[in-house]
Amino acid sequence: MHRAAIGIFDSGIGGLTVAAEIARRMPHEDLIYLGDTARLPYGTKSAATVIKYSERAVDLLLRYPIKAVVIACNTASAHALASLQQHTDLPVLGVIDAGARTAVAASRSGAIAVAATEATVRSGAYQRAITTLAPHARITAQAWPLCVPLAEEGWVDHAVTRLTLKTYLEPFMSTEADTLVLGCTHYPVFKPLIREIIDEDLGGRALTLVDSAEAVTQELTDLLTERQLLAPPRDGRKSFFCTDAPERFGRVGTIFFGSEVAPVFPVDL
Amino acid sequence: MHRAAIGIFDSGIGGLTVAAEIARRMPHEDLIYLGDTARLPYGTKSAATVIKYSERAVDLLLRYPIKAVVIACNTASAHALASLQQHTDLPVLGVIDAGARTAVAASRSGAIAVAATEATVRSGAYQRAITTLAPHARITAQAWPLCVPLAEEGWVDHAVTRLTLKTYLEPFMSTEADTLVLGCTHYPVFKPLIREIIDEDLGGRALTLVDSAEAVTQELTDLLTERQLLAPPRDGRKSFFCTDAPERFGRVGTIFFGSEVAPVFPVDL
Repeated sequence: MHRAAIGIFDSGIGGLTVAAEIARRMPHEDLIYLGDTARLPYGTKSAATVIKYSERAVDLLLRYPIKAVVIACNTASAHALASLQQHTDLPVLGVIDAGARTAVAASRSGAIAVAATEATVRSGAYQRAITTLAPHARITAQAWPLCVPLAEEGWVDHAVTRLTLKTYLEPFMSTEADTLVLGCTHYPVFKPLIREIIDEDLGGRALTLVDSAEAVTQELTDLLTERQLLAPPRDGRKSFFCTDAPERFGRVGTIFFGSEVAPVFPVDL
Repeated sequence: MHRAAIGIFDSGIGGLTVAAEIARRMPHEDLIYLGDTARLPYGTKSAATVIKYSERAVDLLLRYPIKAVVIACNTASAHALASLQQHTDLPVLGVIDAGARTAVAASRSGAIAVAATEATVRSGAYQRAITTLAPHARITAQAWPLCVPLAEEGWVDHAVTRLTLKTYLEPFMSTEADTLVLGCTHYPVFKPLIREIIDEDLGGRALTLVDSAEAVTQELTDLLTERQLLAPPRDGRKSFFCTDAPERFGRVGTIFFGSEVAPVFPVDL
């Protein structure tokens, strides 16, 4: 069982930031990643549709020997975590609960800001997850819809990205938040630029940036350690599946995974 | 038959710029619009998948009394036009052929630039359509991937949009093109800003902007006139169908349609 793989799924390529963090922290683990690229983005779809698609994705992962499922997609975590936990006996971890726990632990002022896609913000999932852990937390949530296409364009340090992030960060600076949750798997690529803009353009601020990839990896590490499910020392194998356009998945995915995304197997769900 | 409706389909809401142009030019016509929002965007999907989805979309339109089908989606026009013309006896018009014909008629220098999504550029569909009509045309094609999310954010005249378009227009200015095809249904909302940037920031240029919504509407008007299929004088009814998230479809769709998008009926394909 400890030799089984970790199953990771996302609507597309953004979850590869989560896979990258898991691979960095636990290099011995085998990873099986599924990007549902035929039906991305989940963010504009209804809860019922996201649950249906997520269950099919997990069914595919369950065809392989796996020991845990990580939902590396904020929209799927928001809508489908509870359903998926019913759907399988394996532990299922989502990025939202992990990000919320890390944010609550980090914040001293009790004021927490969340940046995410429009769909995640509107779902209220981070707000609910944070409030459940810290009922008196003061939460502001803001949609940063351009950050996904900017990241996929590879404009990680472009003047357009700087101006976009400055526009998004200005209302945040007028809150008292001491913690900012990057509530979309694409956003961690902008961490250095966000710090730079806050320090150079917006007057500086003591601030914890919560990266949900790091947060869910920490929870997964704790879980596998506690249950004695860590893989023995070896080079973990990485396998990638996607439901459409494997060439683009491999090419753009490399921005997020940080090393070659291969082999990529096309699958139909 | 002339009382039948015009069926229009797109992967989402961008095609509403085409529906708006048809409604403006032919206010007596009934329109039935289908946005396949459950499976958007088509642009990142393979040709086989786009053909399959397009056929299902047209099958839905064919359940209603219609007299013509307009593919108001560049990706579907690129991959599925020929299949759809086989799929039904009704006339099927696509935005790419219409845009290419208008561009070839407008260009005096024979140098034509095309701006579109990455998928449309990579498909080579505009390049092929233009070359078929004008074998000696000198064509440059460039992807403007951020324009769709900028339009959907409603940042039609924002500093970020100006800087993005300036970045995209700079390489275009070094070509000899006298005609620029806006090869994505979202782009027409930026026409005034594109003219302003070219004139104020980039030194000015005599240039024809080809809007494929206008181009396909002209072809449709000619076709219905020629076949004596124009509707009698009356207020044309507009009906909207989408495959997911009808509330967002109606709300964001209004930016593109220019007036209220209602009633919206959710459908499953």
